[in-house]
Amino acid sequence: MAATLDYDALLAPDLPPPAPVWKGFPPYNFIGGNVDAASMPVEDMIAATATALRREGATLATYGLESGPLGYRPLREFVAAKLRKRSGLAVSPDNVLITSGSNQGLDLVNEIFLRPGDTVLVEQFCYGSALARLRRLGVRPVGVPLDGDGMRMDLLAEKLAALASEGVKPKFIYVIPTIQNPGGSIMPEARRAELLGLSAEYGVPVFEDECYADLLWTGERPPAIAALDDGNRVIHCGSFSKTVAPALRVGYIVAESGLIARMLACKHDGGTGALEQMMLAEYCRTHFDAHVDRVTAILKQKLDAMTAALEEHFGTAAEFVAPEGGIYLWVAFPETVDAMKLAAASAGAGIAINPGPEWSADAAPARSRIRLCFGNPTVGEIREGVKRLAEICHREFGIPLRSGNIERA
Amino acid sequence: MAATLDYDALLAPDLPPPAPVWKGFPPYNFIGGNVDAASMPVEDMIAATATALRREGATLATYGLESGPLGYRPLREFVAAKLRKRSGLAVSPDNVLITSGSNQGLDLVNEIFLRPGDTVLVEQFCYGSALARLRRLGVRPVGVPLDGDGMRMDLLAEKLAALASEGVKPKFIYVIPTIQNPGGSIMPEARRAELLGLSAEYGVPVFEDECYADLLWTGERPPAIAALDDGNRVIHCGSFSKTVAPALRVGYIVAESGLIARMLACKHDGGTGALEQMMLAEYCRTHFDAHVDRVTAILKQKLDAMTAALEEHFGTAAEFVAPEGGIYLWVAFPETVDAMKLAAASAGAGIAINPGPEWSADAAPARSRIRLCFGNPTVGEIREGVKRLAEICHREFGIPLRSGNIERA
Repeated sequence: MAATLDYDALLAPDLPPPAPVWKGFPPYNFIGGNVDAASMPVEDMIAATATALRREGATLATYGLESGPLGYRPLREFVAAKLRKRSGLAVSPDNVLITSGSNQGLDLVNEIFLRPGDTVLVEQFCYGSALARLRRLGVRPVGVPLDGDGMRMDLLAEKLAALASEGVKPKFIYVIPTIQNPGGSIMPEARRAELLGLSAEYGVPVFEDECYADLLWTGERPPAIAALDDGNRVIHCGSFSKTVAPALRVGYIVAESGLIARMLACKHDGGTGALEQMMLAEYCRTHFDAHVDRVTAILKQKLDAMTAALEEHFGTAAEFVAPEGGIYLWVAFPETVDAMKLAAASAGAGIAINPGPEWSADAAPARSRIRLCFGNPTVGEIREGVKRLAEICHREFGIPLRSGNIERA
Repeated sequence: MAATLDYDALLAPDLPPPAPVWKGFPPYNFIGGNVDAASMPVEDMIAATATALRREGATLATYGLESGPLGYRPLREFVAAKLRKRSGLAVSPDNVLITSGSNQGLDLVNEIFLRPGDTVLVEQFCYGSALARLRRLGVRPVGVPLDGDGMRMDLLAEKLAALASEGVKPKFIYVIPTIQNPGGSIMPEARRAELLGLSAEYGVPVFEDECYADLLWTGERPPAIAALDDGNRVIHCGSFSKTVAPALRVGYIVAESGLIARMLACKHDGGTGALEQMMLAEYCRTHFDAHVDRVTAILKQKLDAMTAALEEHFGTAAEFVAPEGGIYLWVAFPETVDAMKLAAASAGAGIAINPGPEWSADAAPARSRIRLCFGNPTVGEIREGVKRLAEICHREFGIPLRSGNIERA
């Protein structure tokens, strides 16, 4: 009898490499959509959990509580109220599908639209996990360049026309219009209307991801693209990961009923975690606005610390536009800097950064760019981590030439 | 500009039908792995949540808390301790992967092993959602008949030999050995050893699903198959859905490190919900055993009510073996009863049942069988629902001929 099985002969032939063993967070952790630990509203979460469980904890005995597969109804009602107030989007709670993080929302939209060989239009620099999902599915992400107002509509029109002339109909246009990831831009209302016009002209829906849209320094923003839609052209998603906590896995999709029914038919998970939905619904109903005000003030301080540290330690070698909200900064270095190599070198020194090519539809334009998340590290960690990053970058690429007042040897 | 998009032309061509709109639970709900609502330990859950959040609520600010992608470490430690105590299985918390319900465990195992055209061996009567998952993947489930001790090893040996002679190597043998779903049997230790022998002889791993194993009337059971394995042949999964609450989406997979790393590389969900993991770890550490004792006593009363009602209203027309634990009863009617039609007719009367063919690798042997879940309905609902089911069955199929003391017209 063989002592052990040879699993290599049994596993599927096209698997990704095994996940590495987790070693804990690095000392300077500038990746991941993590948020400020000190402002986690622990006591209010405890109180919200107690209220919700005392009222209807017995309903945990059934899959989906007593709300059905769309998700806990009071949370869907809160999402609808929040969207109306903050995004100008009027929807029924029956058109809100609660998902296990916005990533499950991406998966469900992908599942009902995409098959290998399909094409999707994306912002040239784009959420890395959305790009990775498309690539795993064998789908081609076609990048459309951005400017300071988000995806460029003149270039989107060119791409749509070029694809049409090749007989290719993209399945959707994926955009993050309000605090673009990674660039941080906010698409003005006029451009949103242009996008809807192109969507209608080419018969290609828009998939609008608003995961960061509630984290604005001023609170001012144009309506969601979905709010400007006079038809059925927009699928909208969002999350509580950035406004409340990423370890809670709760997001949502908003779409017309027919699409929601299609996605629900592909959601085989027995529902999204009920305790998290109950706590969030109870907490957010009375605390969301004040909490968001509090955390955005903290995030703005961290952004200011990060931009100051970049200016101090990189000087003109680091180019960026400070975003109007969110938790990340998109930084461009001179083209001699290879961001993939910089990420590898800095990882060895306990500094985690997102290299630009992983956040880009095409690697080349992002070769010398990195994404730095400032949500979770403290101001002290931001200052020290950026300083050390500059030292590593100088050592590897000779950039920055100077750091602060000290010329480097 | 077109008023609306035609999504039929854009959606993937092979989607399942849209999900129906949810209308609430039927009055007599004998489907789904739901549990007793009255025994939900609401106050203890509130206290556990408060303790866990006060201690480490700030860690909700990072994906995976501070435990990494395998799941909240105190919960993995509890699972390891529970498996050692209840299933005779000694494992490290590093070999426990927390999943969003055991269904995600099934999905991950399927994903690393299965591709369209593959073959898997299953119990002839088998968990419907596991079968549905295999069919969606284009995988062939080959059923092995059961007896009162679970999957028959003589027939498994025949199937393995027959498949080998066709050049087909099944990817794994999926079994529910402790409270089989739907049959309720417990596989004796000697047969578990035989299964491991066949696994070794043919080089086919065993996937052991122990979702119901903690709900035993006596607490007595043989060791898990994984506990009897002297090699690496068994992947083991379980859940908190039946012992604590199904609306909490928390299960686990236990496997050798190499397989865990493979599954983790396919788990793209940003982690399983943290609040549910934290609450469960804190609650279960001190309350699990007493809670399980309490709920199994209640479940046994419900089972007794169901078997009494079946005897009263169906008499000898309903054949079953009362299980030694769990939340369901597998009932055989005379072959003139078409269970699919019975399920449709009873659904119209507010009674939900699982028709046997949906719980069977081949529809034919389960044509006249149904699964009745007794976990969630009250004793009164069980009595009335079974009475009404007998009336419908009599009306549709002339069976039972008699009900109680009253001969039917």
